[in-house]
Amino acid sequence: MIEMENLLFGAHPILEALKADQEIDKVLMLNSLKTSIAKEIVELVKSKGISLNRVPEEKLNRITRQNHQGIIAFSSPVKFHDIREILPPLFKRKKAPFIMILDRVSDVRNFGAIVRTAECAGVDAIIIPKKGAAQINAESAKTSAGAIFNIPICKVGGIETVLPFLLESGLKLVACTEKTQRMYTEVDYNQPIGIVMGSEESGIANSNMNKCDYIVKIPLVGKTESLNVSVAAGAIIYEAVRQRNLASE
Amino acid sequence: MIEMENLLFGAHPILEALKADQEIDKVLMLNSLKTSIAKEIVELVKSKGISLNRVPEEKLNRITRQNHQGIIAFSSPVKFHDIREILPPLFKRKKAPFIMILDRVSDVRNFGAIVRTAECAGVDAIIIPKKGAAQINAESAKTSAGAIFNIPICKVGGIETVLPFLLESGLKLVACTEKTQRMYTEVDYNQPIGIVMGSEESGIANSNMNKCDYIVKIPLVGKTESLNVSVAAGAIIYEAVRQRNLASE
Repeated sequence: MIEMENLLFGAHPILEALKADQEIDKVLMLNSLKTSIAKEIVELVKSKGISLNRVPEEKLNRITRQNHQGIIAFSSPVKFHDIREILPPLFKRKKAPFIMILDRVSDVRNFGAIVRTAECAGVDAIIIPKKGAAQINAESAKTSAGAIFNIPICKVGGIETVLPFLLESGLKLVACTEKTQRMYTEVDYNQPIGIVMGSEESGIANSNMNKCDYIVKIPLVGKTESLNVSVAAGAIIYEAVRQRNLASE
Repeated sequence: MIEMENLLFGAHPILEALKADQEIDKVLMLNSLKTSIAKEIVELVKSKGISLNRVPEEKLNRITRQNHQGIIAFSSPVKFHDIREILPPLFKRKKAPFIMILDRVSDVRNFGAIVRTAECAGVDAIIIPKKGAAQINAESAKTSAGAIFNIPICKVGGIETVLPFLLESGLKLVACTEKTQRMYTEVDYNQPIGIVMGSEESGIANSNMNKCDYIVKIPLVGKTESLNVSVAAGAIIYEAVRQRNLASE
């Protein structure tokens, strides 16, 4: 699944890529690596909020047979966008923005399916955090059916850092969870909207949920406790599309 | 992923299981196996419409280290239901039946996600064909979040064999495809409903599509040609739920 074009290895090339602000998704470093250049990389990686894993040598060897010198980085196949540059032109065109915010959706296939749905439905952008998000790689590109290249994806330090900006911009934030009484169909999606979906394991962080205007659920009548997150995202995205199409008729 | 409890091996145990009408999902047979008992098994398997694959010995050895004698069968972890026994009690209770028909959805994760959504939404039964459907095994059980055990699944010889019965029973059949102009939101889902979803590769077979009352699409405005089938199923299932909840208010 790993395509060579997204793989960087060796301390110097990776340091240069970081300094040149190349889109690095993740860095794997040999757990015993303590050279001065390794330290420099660790500092840069931390300051940029890039995910860093310390791993045993076998893990690195399994990824590449090249001389990796104890460090491998995955560059992103997509160029990330800045949500601050996406919203103003939408408002200017009198289009009510429609944004998806993924609070640590970590499964690559779920992430790919949500990107695919969002692109199909005309969502304006997807916001993901630097840490805890599914990796943007050949597999997520595949499961998104290529949609990953056709919808702006914005990577932010943490979801909590971007919600105040979205609210100030005039978006209504809708948190989708099982722990509420309000139905997702009760929201007016003709407003400027940001829909927040949570991680497969723990849902939306409480601190993020508290910032949202609407906390809604998709009705569940069976024994299963929750929907798959990409299916839930699809149901709420297409409810928004239904309302917007109805309003434009 | 293969759990021993779902695995049968050896000619005699498999022959007995078939004769006893045990739920066999799939049979793998050594391509050179030509014993008389093997012939008997092949005939029984064919008459029951069970999927049979001829395979090389290494494939069998990879599945089990037991003495398989050139033949392995996967029994189903779920007991299948008969759609003819499911519909009458629903009509008697004055409940408009809500059935999902999966025309060769073959990806195990898509199938599991659809089963999960259907169980969450209160769908009455799922109909799958004997051939071309995703295997019902430990993986589909896992991706369904266990829902596979809580919703009736009906296995039929072929989807084409069951559609006339559903229509005679009074169900309206809704085919979901990209190749139509009618929106999925234009159908009245308060009627007795069967929703047909097609395979990931080729969609719904034309002969099945022609039997349906409504041929509908989910709107796509982006560059991506189609939604993931489990997301599409979720959108249409929850549109039906929305309409039904509205009607019952």
